[in-house]
Amino acid sequence: MIKVGIVGGTGYTGVELLRILVNHPDVELKVITSRSEDGLPVADMFPNLRGHTDLRFSVPDVQTLGECDVVFFATPHGVAHSLAEDILNTGARVIDLSADFRLQDAVEWEKWYGQPHGAPGLLPQAVYGLPEVNRAQIQEARLIAVPGCYPTSVQLGFLPLLENNLLPEQMLIADCKSGVSGAGRGASVGSLLCEASESMMAYAVKGHRHLPEIRQGMERAAGKAVNLTFVPHLTPMIRGIHSTLYAQAPGLAEDLQALYEARYANEPFVDVMPAGSHPATRSVKGSNVCRIAVHHHTHTGQVIVLSVIDNLVKGASGQAVQNMNIMFGLAEDAGLKQVALLP
Amino acid sequence: MIKVGIVGGTGYTGVELLRILVNHPDVELKVITSRSEDGLPVADMFPNLRGHTDLRFSVPDVQTLGECDVVFFATPHGVAHSLAEDILNTGARVIDLSADFRLQDAVEWEKWYGQPHGAPGLLPQAVYGLPEVNRAQIQEARLIAVPGCYPTSVQLGFLPLLENNLLPEQMLIADCKSGVSGAGRGASVGSLLCEASESMMAYAVKGHRHLPEIRQGMERAAGKAVNLTFVPHLTPMIRGIHSTLYAQAPGLAEDLQALYEARYANEPFVDVMPAGSHPATRSVKGSNVCRIAVHHHTHTGQVIVLSVIDNLVKGASGQAVQNMNIMFGLAEDAGLKQVALLP
Amino acid sequence: MIKVGIVGGTGYTGVELLRILVNHPDVELKVITSRSEDGLPVADMFPNLRGHTDLRFSVPDVQTLGECDVVFFATPHGVAHSLAEDILNTGARVIDLSADFRLQDAVEWEKWYGQPHGAPGLLPQAVYGLPEVNRAQIQEARLIAVPGCYPTSVQLGFLPLLENNLLPEQMLIADCKSGVSGAGRGASVGSLLCEASESMMAYAVKGHRHLPEIRQGMERAAGKAVNLTFVPHLTPMIRGIHSTLYAQAPGLAEDLQALYEARYANEPFVDVMPAGSHPATRSVKGSNVCRIAVHHHTHTGQVIVLSVIDNLVKGASGQAVQNMNIMFGLAEDAGLKQVALLP
Amino acid sequence: MIKVGIVGGTGYTGVELLRILVNHPDVELKVITSRSEDGLPVADMFPNLRGHTDLRFSVPDVQTLGECDVVFFATPHGVAHSLAEDILNTGARVIDLSADFRLQDAVEWEKWYGQPHGAPGLLPQAVYGLPEVNRAQIQEARLIAVPGCYPTSVQLGFLPLLENNLLPEQMLIADCKSGVSGAGRGASVGSLLCEASESMMAYAVKGHRHLPEIRQGMERAAGKAVNLTFVPHLTPMIRGIHSTLYAQAPGLAEDLQALYEARYANEPFVDVMPAGSHPATRSVKGSNVCRIAVHHHTHTGQVIVLSVIDNLVKGASGQAVQNMNIMFGLAEDAGLKQVALLP
Repeated sequence: MIKVGIVGGTGYTGVELLRILVNHPDVELKVITSRSEDGLPVADMFPNLRGHTDLRFSVPDVQTLGECDVVFFATPHGVAHSLAEDILNTGARVIDLSADFRLQDAVEWEKWYGQPHGAPGLLPQAVYGLPEVNRAQIQEARLIAVPGCYPTSVQLGFLPLLENNLLPEQMLIADCKSGVSGAGRGASVGSLLCEASESMMAYAVKGHRHLPEIRQGMERAAGKAVNLTFVPHLTPMIRGIHSTLYAQAPGLAEDLQALYEARYANEPFVDVMPAGSHPATRSVKGSNVCRIAVHHHTHTGQVIVLSVIDNLVKGASGQAVQNMNIMFGLAEDAGLKQVALLP
Repeated sequence: MIKVGIVGGTGYTGVELLRILVNHPDVELKVITSRSEDGLPVADMFPNLRGHTDLRFSVPDVQTLGECDVVFFATPHGVAHSLAEDILNTGARVIDLSADFRLQDAVEWEKWYGQPHGAPGLLPQAVYGLPEVNRAQIQEARLIAVPGCYPTSVQLGFLPLLENNLLPEQMLIADCKSGVSGAGRGASVGSLLCEASESMMAYAVKGHRHLPEIRQGMERAAGKAVNLTFVPHLTPMIRGIHSTLYAQAPGLAEDLQALYEARYANEPFVDVMPAGSHPATRSVKGSNVCRIAVHHHTHTGQVIVLSVIDNLVKGASGQAVQNMNIMFGLAEDAGLKQVALLP
Repeated sequence: MIKVGIVGGTGYTGVELLRILVNHPDVELKVITSRSEDGLPVADMFPNLRGHTDLRFSVPDVQTLGECDVVFFATPHGVAHSLAEDILNTGARVIDLSADFRLQDAVEWEKWYGQPHGAPGLLPQAVYGLPEVNRAQIQEARLIAVPGCYPTSVQLGFLPLLENNLLPEQMLIADCKSGVSGAGRGASVGSLLCEASESMMAYAVKGHRHLPEIRQGMERAAGKAVNLTFVPHLTPMIRGIHSTLYAQAPGLAEDLQALYEARYANEPFVDVMPAGSHPATRSVKGSNVCRIAVHHHTHTGQVIVLSVIDNLVKGASGQAVQNMNIMFGLAEDAGLKQVALLP
Repeated sequence: MIKVGIVGGTGYTGVELLRILVNHPDVELKVITSRSEDGLPVADMFPNLRGHTDLRFSVPDVQTLGECDVVFFATPHGVAHSLAEDILNTGARVIDLSADFRLQDAVEWEKWYGQPHGAPGLLPQAVYGLPEVNRAQIQEARLIAVPGCYPTSVQLGFLPLLENNLLPEQMLIADCKSGVSGAGRGASVGSLLCEASESMMAYAVKGHRHLPEIRQGMERAAGKAVNLTFVPHLTPMIRGIHSTLYAQAPGLAEDLQALYEARYANEPFVDVMPAGSHPATRSVKGSNVCRIAVHHHTHTGQVIVLSVIDNLVKGASGQAVQNMNIMFGLAEDAGLKQVALLP
């Protein structure tokens, strides 16, 4: 059994980690921390966990965490910067769900997050935890940066085009729609039911923190600079991201359906839908799957990719567990076989 | 492995059975029927099942079904009446999620369902599948009538009071709020998002088909006639039933919290919340648990019980699988360990 | 034109007052206050008002407010206590949407609100602004306490029974379901879309602040003590209250449908639905109407009344404007003719 | 008073016409038709109208309709084809909310709607009722084709760019998100709350019927062919369209904010938001306003326009009434001053 700790368990990625891990066949949950809720049974805050765990929140403590085989960070950015090194020094591995180690360029990170990077020395060993790209490195990794939710859905949607150098034009567009859980469990007016339901709006059109992360991943795949426009939207639902991706590729003759199917044929968590499909986010609600459909308007040269995930699962906690499974040599889908809740 | 068939797999209880059974460790799904969708892969209709099953819908056929160990009916009322006997004769057992065998009194059934009872001869062997009441009979049963959604939440909420004869006054009230999935997957104007969301309404105040079923169960528990007022409400959400139960019991001195905790101490799927709790339906969304809180206004003599379930799980398909587990001597929670999806 | 001021314009009752008043034919909006948003154009906070008003928030100032004919308070409890007297002294009238003057008994108020009553001296002149009961006093009033949302729907539903002394039994039940806007625009975790949508729960079963207000009104109507159980529920929608009212009245022979129709025949904002109806909250969304249906189970003696309002209109800001109309001799429905937004 | 008839009053655009017209100061509603609901009071079907109209549905009859000054068609496509000419011959004018006269090219219409065009002879006199483009022709028109919902939001968003020939590149993208009411009040599985809520999906990526209509309007404005990719999405809310428009215009130096403000300075129902804004659909819910924000990523040359409307108001019935107001020389905003319902 792998001994697991969680730092920061009171947010949505925290409770989602718990939902997955309490039923994971190879995991023993040892510790979950929260400074504000020290001593509170986790199931008192999240009653869905009643009967599944007796764990209580405790104040984060490096020694206790160091007795784990792996420690997940489900914290706001900046926290993992200050704690990860100490934990790594105990021999435990770290899987960070925050943005702290996603950008390889600390200067870029500081520009987007508006504060000094607290652990640039760890960046060389941080592996970007997108298994469909970095599976081999993940196996060896001691520090994983779990990709963001938008970046996961956008990269998986664009990868086959980029890797095969099929996009002669530079201008790519990712029009992304996210459920409100992406904004976290913090009390903010904009996330109130009365503000966010029965409405649709774009936000951060000027620039969103996930843009440099997406670009970094796309440029690695393309081997060149990529010009991406990314517009996120707040959608009146709890979970789900729907990314609608546009790429102008006049004259493109490839069979994109076959290309996508081949690229993801061995991926346990990427499902290329039949030609002509329109995946709905509810088809992945609560599951770790990314479903993709590729459309090609040959008369206009426009390629349209539809990519859906559950932002809290494949976009966060599920992908984190997938990384853990790979790191520890478990079945990659251990604990991740949940069928999406439909309806 | 238990070989399972499902008759009528295109509705919400059908897809919910599939969601549970594809991950059930002791089950092999053999056949799922639909006259209208013959030949269609199940996962084409319900894309959440892609990758979990290759089964196709087929026309119901007694011989094929008879090769199963157990056949679930997830059909409109009347269908199980006409098919169950043939299937039972093959030696397979039957678990009926419809209302066909819930009422022991065929005349009463005909009054509420407006058509002749098609199989009164089977009623003596039909066991009402509420494990918290009938576990022993379920173990021996060959034909199970799975309780309705409202009846499950109302009976579990009232049982400790009734069984202990604590209600001197006769007038009991069940004010119940159900998500829209209770109305099924049929295309009807009243269940459209634009009609049912952002609104709340009572319905069937004059009399709902679940009333005689609830009364039958309550009277068995009380050993006497029960006077119940039942008002169901349509609530703008997909899943969940919240039953608010009222019982006037002036002078009642019992420690109801202790009574409820004792009654359900050994029940794997009934969770008595701490005193003063307000269970939310989302705490059971996708799980087979019924959560109950009991409040007692000693100054007025009013007992108020709050009882929540997921209408598609403990109120239908989950409870059906719980019955199967009991019938076949499996762990009662096999395949039913899902944690509620929260948020 | 009646000159109007609003104290506390940043909450939901504030913006709803504005929605109504900017189109009111007899009103000139002069001032709207907010300490935190001083100087901000109202339409910057509430973009639905763009093009309808150029007003800016200002710090509350007695002299400026005193130049109005009437000042609405859309503030948390306690604020009107400290400001109302000064404003009344300027000659302006006050319509308070908060709970500050709803209870005639200051001691009772202090018990439920947990703080000293700040203006007990004003209680004798405070008129409870339920026009269907107190229209004559409202005409003469200088200080109005606008009823709460639950109290409006519950009292209007019970009044005909109480006024006619038709309830021999004492135990009455109000099972009420409210949209989330009833919790206000404050940032709280419980009101987040991800917490409150797709779920149903009771709250404050032990005792809710609206209970003494409802009881006060019911006892006035009945001329005797009333034993009421009140259970509020949080419902996953923005607006609307659905009150399901239960009264045991064995042997009651009255034609309740006729009784209700007669009671409200001349009321512009109470709509008694045809016998057998189930009013939906969406039928009053955005309108000042209370729709009521009365059901009578003669075999059990149970009377069931269904009463729906929009909590922000008839349950708050619309009713406040209705009071203003009465106070100033305007048409009672001036500015209040909005048809509910359906779908 | 203008005498008004409505053909086909049982859908969402029908009830929305009624909501607006019962409070229109210059309108007398004379007749509303429905073959299936002949004799039924309109307010029995749509209880929000109780107290606002006593009208009953009647079978469509040319003579009765011909006594009106104007007849609205709120019917499925094809119906206006067969009835409009007879009504025009009586002297009444026709405002058609369906798609029947939107495309000037009957062959194109037949291609997209899969049936013969029933009234090509009327096309020359049909005026496309987008007041921001065709106000002068609307004043003189006897037959109006009210624009579709997507086409309204997309055209208003792109017009200033097209009219000023600012888009050297041809590839434009309209990524549009619509509430479910756009799918109408017909009972279909895909529009059920349990299918459409808590989910997001694209549809008709291959080609949507609104594409040729949008293209026709854009090409008129541009004076040349336009290459548009249009992807509609189903969004879990009742009302609202959010169009996110992308145009690549490298080197564009214009002050787009000023351009948009100037273009719509005199338009009563187009609101250009301040620079940097993100309009939410709820800011127009129930109102006839289109709110637009224009963003320009000068470093990439990407122009992003956000355009929101209420699909049932500015996208259908409100715009229809705006056309009527223009045709009959009324104030253009008569009956259309509703403030959006927020929250």
